[in-house]
Amino acid sequence: MSTPSDAPGSDQDRAARVALTSLVEPGHRAVWSLVRAEGAPATLERLMRGDVPEEALKTSVAARRSGLDPRRFAEATLLRAARLGARIVVPSDDEWPGRVEALATLELEAPGRVNRDVRPPLCIWVRGSWPLGPTLERSVAVVGARASTGYGNQVTAEIAAGLAENDWTVVSGGAFGIDAAAHRAAVLAGGITVAVLACGVDRPYPAGNAALFERIADAGLLISEWPPGSEPLRHRFLIRNRVIAAATAGTVVVEAAARSGAAQTMSRVLALGRAAMVVPGPVTSAMSVGCHELLRSRPDATLVTGVDDVLEAVGRIGEYGKPAPRGPEHRRDTLDEESALVLEAVPPRGSVTQEELAARAGLSLRTVLRRLSLLEVAGLVVRRDGEVALARRPRAAP
Amino acid sequence: MSTPSDAPGSDQDRAARVALTSLVEPGHRAVWSLVRAEGAPATLERLMRGDVPEEALKTSVAARRSGLDPRRFAEATLLRAARLGARIVVPSDDEWPGRVEALATLELEAPGRVNRDVRPPLCIWVRGSWPLGPTLERSVAVVGARASTGYGNQVTAEIAAGLAENDWTVVSGGAFGIDAAAHRAAVLAGGITVAVLACGVDRPYPAGNAALFERIADAGLLISEWPPGSEPLRHRFLIRNRVIAAATAGTVVVEAAARSGAAQTMSRVLALGRAAMVVPGPVTSAMSVGCHELLRSRPDATLVTGVDDVLEAVGRIGEYGKPAPRGPEHRRDTLDEESALVLEAVPPRGSVTQEELAARAGLSLRTVLRRLSLLEVAGLVVRRDGEVALARRPRAAP
Repeated sequence: MSTPSDAPGSDQDRAARVALTSLVEPGHRAVWSLVRAEGAPATLERLMRGDVPEEALKTSVAARRSGLDPRRFAEATLLRAARLGARIVVPSDDEWPGRVEALATLELEAPGRVNRDVRPPLCIWVRGSWPLGPTLERSVAVVGARASTGYGNQVTAEIAAGLAENDWTVVSGGAFGIDAAAHRAAVLAGGITVAVLACGVDRPYPAGNAALFERIADAGLLISEWPPGSEPLRHRFLIRNRVIAAATAGTVVVEAAARSGAAQTMSRVLALGRAAMVVPGPVTSAMSVGCHELLRSRPDATLVTGVDDVLEAVGRIGEYGKPAPRGPEHRRDTLDEESALVLEAVPPRGSVTQEELAARAGLSLRTVLRRLSLLEVAGLVVRRDGEVALARRPRAAP
Repeated sequence: MSTPSDAPGSDQDRAARVALTSLVEPGHRAVWSLVRAEGAPATLERLMRGDVPEEALKTSVAARRSGLDPRRFAEATLLRAARLGARIVVPSDDEWPGRVEALATLELEAPGRVNRDVRPPLCIWVRGSWPLGPTLERSVAVVGARASTGYGNQVTAEIAAGLAENDWTVVSGGAFGIDAAAHRAAVLAGGITVAVLACGVDRPYPAGNAALFERIADAGLLISEWPPGSEPLRHRFLIRNRVIAAATAGTVVVEAAARSGAAQTMSRVLALGRAAMVVPGPVTSAMSVGCHELLRSRPDATLVTGVDDVLEAVGRIGEYGKPAPRGPEHRRDTLDEESALVLEAVPPRGSVTQEELAARAGLSLRTVLRRLSLLEVAGLVVRRDGEVALARRPRAAP
């Protein structure tokens, strides 16, 4: 039975979960089951004394333990994270993203450890100020090839910006190519974006995206199952992918080469009952071959041509649909203060740039962009080519 | 009972079929049934004396008969065809393409004459030396937009050349754009190609493809249900499309604009149990919008990226295929002809006045206004301030 000090959410539980991540890779089926049955501190005890059900696990834990005291590691790591401004989130925290718990029952038919060890994270490291769970509640993953084409980057930017404008969080893996284009477009549109890393949040990989990662930490979240200091080992990207699939309402693959990781990602997305969306491209483009392979081999995958198709698919998938269009009662007088300020700053005739609008309203550009999305959904303003104008008249209900 | 002189395949049967095509458009359900039951000469007798089951048929036959003796027409046309080097093929001939008989039982759910009058041809005019039936036995249709792009032309050429190299006949409609690219590539690859025309084989349309038609007549076949001298009237293309669908093992749509005729073609292909194949393209290309619409709305359609995928699909479908189960028809496909014309005339983006719409649709303003009311009730268009625009895609209920 748990004593107060090792109860879920206690410092001891938190520290034990961190210590466990130093001994075993995330998603491990047996370890996750033990934690669920006996709690993290008791599981850590077991692993440290070699009392584990699997011989392979015993061996790998023993190898990792040499030269490392897991408890000291946890202490040092928690201190290090605090200095970095990173925090750890565990299942008993309010901000734990409930969606990842779907991994508890995920069964994949493909062989191999990466398809067996797909259980939920034990803990998630976070950099950024948004609460993790609510941020992922309305989220869509936009992922794809590192060696993306101009076409892929353009389509990605349009989809990610459109998601941001519709108040959906854009999730991706922080890689070059499609991932970077998705994060960047979401940030530029004033939206929230989450990079799910396969290494520590203190050293996001690849280094070439360093400036982008700083902007994401500012405007969104950098998250990882691996403790600060962890290296982006090759197999970790595959382990990480299950979190992207589980944490979002759906995943869009924009470009993928032949026999890429996209098929592995989509098998998780489909097995989890999330929307599996694929952007087609020229059949003459090597970077669309993987997309067309997916569309041909997975009848459950949906061909999407733009953000409208994406919103339709994630709306269809269930409870996370687009907010219903608001009726005529949603008028100027029901607006929050900031939205009202923004609306008042739009000139009665003609249009202004979003920057001018921010100056007129006396608000930050980011606030203005977020409020404009709401005002646009409410049918009060229209945006075209970066300019903002009053909607000609509020739309009548159909 | 047939006497030798009016038995199927006799000169009298042949002449009667030609005469019938001067009185009624091909595919007419009642006329085809009469010919099957009583033979062509008896059916011609009936039509000439006005003894026909449908009032509308009686009226239209009477109108066409004024100033024309169908028997003289048949004689003159057969002579004219012989001078041109064209021949007529009837069902009792060895070279009759058996595949088109699948039209005998085709039932489409969409309303309108073009979806009702889909019965097999009474006769087929042929220019070119290959025997018609064997030539169509291993054939695939490659069709698409007249305003094709360089991308579409390139993909078409690769598919058509690949089919030719694998001893498949390439069938198309002789139009500019994708059709011409398909015929041309098949000829260049030393293959056989068949142009299925909506006018007489003596005056293939469009005239801009005249040199290509000469090469097709040389290396392949020009065929038509309409007698020499017939004009390519607009509605004939839609009537013709059922023959392309039925005569081939499958149809590939390479490029198609939004709400193009491709959907009509594919509904026939699928209802006939043939392989319905669609080439995707850049989502940024207007000429791939219709292709992506098809792939999204028709789960039975197959995405193909090249000739290997096409060969796989026509291999899978078997020689004559089983009719596919019919799914719920799209709302657009269930429109009457005038409403469909009006809907097609609404631009994909932006709006037009009702007067402009009438001009674009080639219909009277009064007709347009009446049809608009229906389209508006069906949720397909919206009217605001006297302007008409397409309704945005209906969202699935959450």
